[in-house]
Amino acid sequence: MADTEDAPRIAAEPLRAFVARVFESVGLPAADAAAVAGLMVEADPRGSDTHGVIRLPLYVRRIRGGGVNPRPNIRIVSEKPAAALVDGDNGMGHLVMRFAARTAIEKARTAGAAWVGARMSNHAGPGWLYAMMPLAHDMIALYFAVGSANHLPPWGGREELLGTNPVAIAVPAMEEAPVVLDMAPTVAAFGKVRLKAQRNEPMPVGWMIDHDGKPLTDAKRADEGYLLPIGEYKGYGLSMMTGLLAGVLNRAAFGRDVVSMVQDAAAVTNTGQAIVAISIDTFVPADVFKRSVDAVVRDIRGSERLPGVERIFVPGEQSALKARQRTTRGIPLPKPLRDSLDGVARDVGIAPL
Amino acid sequence: MADTEDAPRIAAEPLRAFVARVFESVGLPAADAAAVAGLMVEADPRGSDTHGVIRLPLYVRRIRGGGVNPRPNIRIVSEKPAAALVDGDNGMGHLVMRFAARTAIEKARTAGAAWVGARMSNHAGPGWLYAMMPLAHDMIALYFAVGSANHLPPWGGREELLGTNPVAIAVPAMEEAPVVLDMAPTVAAFGKVRLKAQRNEPMPVGWMIDHDGKPLTDAKRADEGYLLPIGEYKGYGLSMMTGLLAGVLNRAAFGRDVVSMVQDAAAVTNTGQAIVAISIDTFVPADVFKRSVDAVVRDIRGSERLPGVERIFVPGEQSALKARQRTTRGIPLPKPLRDSLDGVARDVGIAPL
Repeated sequence: MADTEDAPRIAAEPLRAFVARVFESVGLPAADAAAVAGLMVEADPRGSDTHGVIRLPLYVRRIRGGGVNPRPNIRIVSEKPAAALVDGDNGMGHLVMRFAARTAIEKARTAGAAWVGARMSNHAGPGWLYAMMPLAHDMIALYFAVGSANHLPPWGGREELLGTNPVAIAVPAMEEAPVVLDMAPTVAAFGKVRLKAQRNEPMPVGWMIDHDGKPLTDAKRADEGYLLPIGEYKGYGLSMMTGLLAGVLNRAAFGRDVVSMVQDAAAVTNTGQAIVAISIDTFVPADVFKRSVDAVVRDIRGSERLPGVERIFVPGEQSALKARQRTTRGIPLPKPLRDSLDGVARDVGIAPL
Repeated sequence: MADTEDAPRIAAEPLRAFVARVFESVGLPAADAAAVAGLMVEADPRGSDTHGVIRLPLYVRRIRGGGVNPRPNIRIVSEKPAAALVDGDNGMGHLVMRFAARTAIEKARTAGAAWVGARMSNHAGPGWLYAMMPLAHDMIALYFAVGSANHLPPWGGREELLGTNPVAIAVPAMEEAPVVLDMAPTVAAFGKVRLKAQRNEPMPVGWMIDHDGKPLTDAKRADEGYLLPIGEYKGYGLSMMTGLLAGVLNRAAFGRDVVSMVQDAAAVTNTGQAIVAISIDTFVPADVFKRSVDAVVRDIRGSERLPGVERIFVPGEQSALKARQRTTRGIPLPKPLRDSLDGVARDVGIAPL
């Protein structure tokens, strides 16, 4: 996305401070406002442009509309030594999932592994944010979430009963960047479809189908069709299982109960997520493991390439490279995004960015 | 596969007894021989034809060749309340993973969840066999395995450093069949490619590419190309993460260390697998959960279909229907399979089937 990279840039710190001021102005306690801002601004440098500060106007609208509780009582409602259900009391998803990740880390430290689910949560930004939290504790993590709107019909169907429910898996390395997969079970993300529409470009066959099951390539007609799952019935299956793990198991919304967070600022979404932490030392000394991961990464990176391929990347590597560059050069802030953030500032009565 | 369904049939019990006799004849203790036979014959009724008794000649060759230990000391080598590493002592994978699943169930019962990895294991048949074991205990399970041969290059590469590492997830329902996903991260399985070759049919574009990265559609030239991962880099990422979770974390083989079990009957594969069990009651009463799963299944099944689609299935449903039918009508035993089983009987000196 060259157009994003060419945009004016801003350092992370003033952006973070601005986002924190916005959240304080709509009623979040200072520490919570700072925490959400920190996580949102952490998302942008790794290239999760669609999941970072760009969501600020929506989040603010939902807090002011009563759809999100600015002062939640996030708590464990049932637990065992290696499992817990967290009730997010309809707070910001970032706060709920940070709490859940910390709970999983704490439990995995003594139990060796832990599975923590969350209900009454909300959109929490990209899943890798939470899957990466246990890494510093020499742990591996998995993250599952029910998407914040249903965009996917069952395989063979045409009712959108499923979301682009993401799965993230993060594994630490020693000298290499952590290996981090964060994927939705659809061939294309809706963001990519919107970009094609903006650019008046056709979509490749395989991204979407229309109501008759025929290939849909006109991105401007995206509303008349459905995203296709990866591997056909496999991606459909993955989306459904993720929904059962992150939604139904946590008594969170799934299927017809999913409320699109975009459509109704007052609606309670009862978003469900789950995080699993595994303490590496139970299996192999963490140092040995991390060196093995380095070796695997280098072996894959150095392996023979297909003609025309310049470099083989491992999952998360491109995001890590982007984060390094953006930490130095600043985070791109295209004019429409800056305008929308300034609009939020006006709305809540604080100084613009 | 109408040709399979039309084949002569055999009831499960005599087939199981025959397979058990074969394993006893090559040195497995009677109880172990019966256990492996039971699991292998359980695979066939659910339609895992390529992972059930068809593998008997290969297993016997590996036991007789010294590649598999017929009398292993399968044991936990390190553990915490919710995690364990099992060393399979190079025994039959079925025995190792049954042990691992039982360990996970036992630990999850008190800890709420448990992650159990296995090293020095072997090919264990389809992953759903083990992912389904915790269901009877009101648990959900996930299974990860390193494939028994590398068939997948990294995305953009042309060295086969990765396997079709499967992931299985099983969730119990109340009146409906359990929801069970068992998938490899490739668009097509090698078995399907072989079938196309036998039938002189071309493969669809998207199944395989050749050494230059161009679509390969001639199934007879499959050796000159590579399977394609689902969702392009996503399936590649999924295969790699599964390998890190089931292989590297357990100090089992991954990447260049993977030994094809087909090529060398004397080679120790050090196969790695992992199983995760989650006790549902920690999150929601199991009855409530299972009724919710019933409702989700029925909602998806009854949802609007694309033109020409007769029925929407949920993951595992077709296998469950097949199992019911085969339990009544018997397991299809095509002549080539029967001949190969009789060949095994001759080799080990027992009565044929």
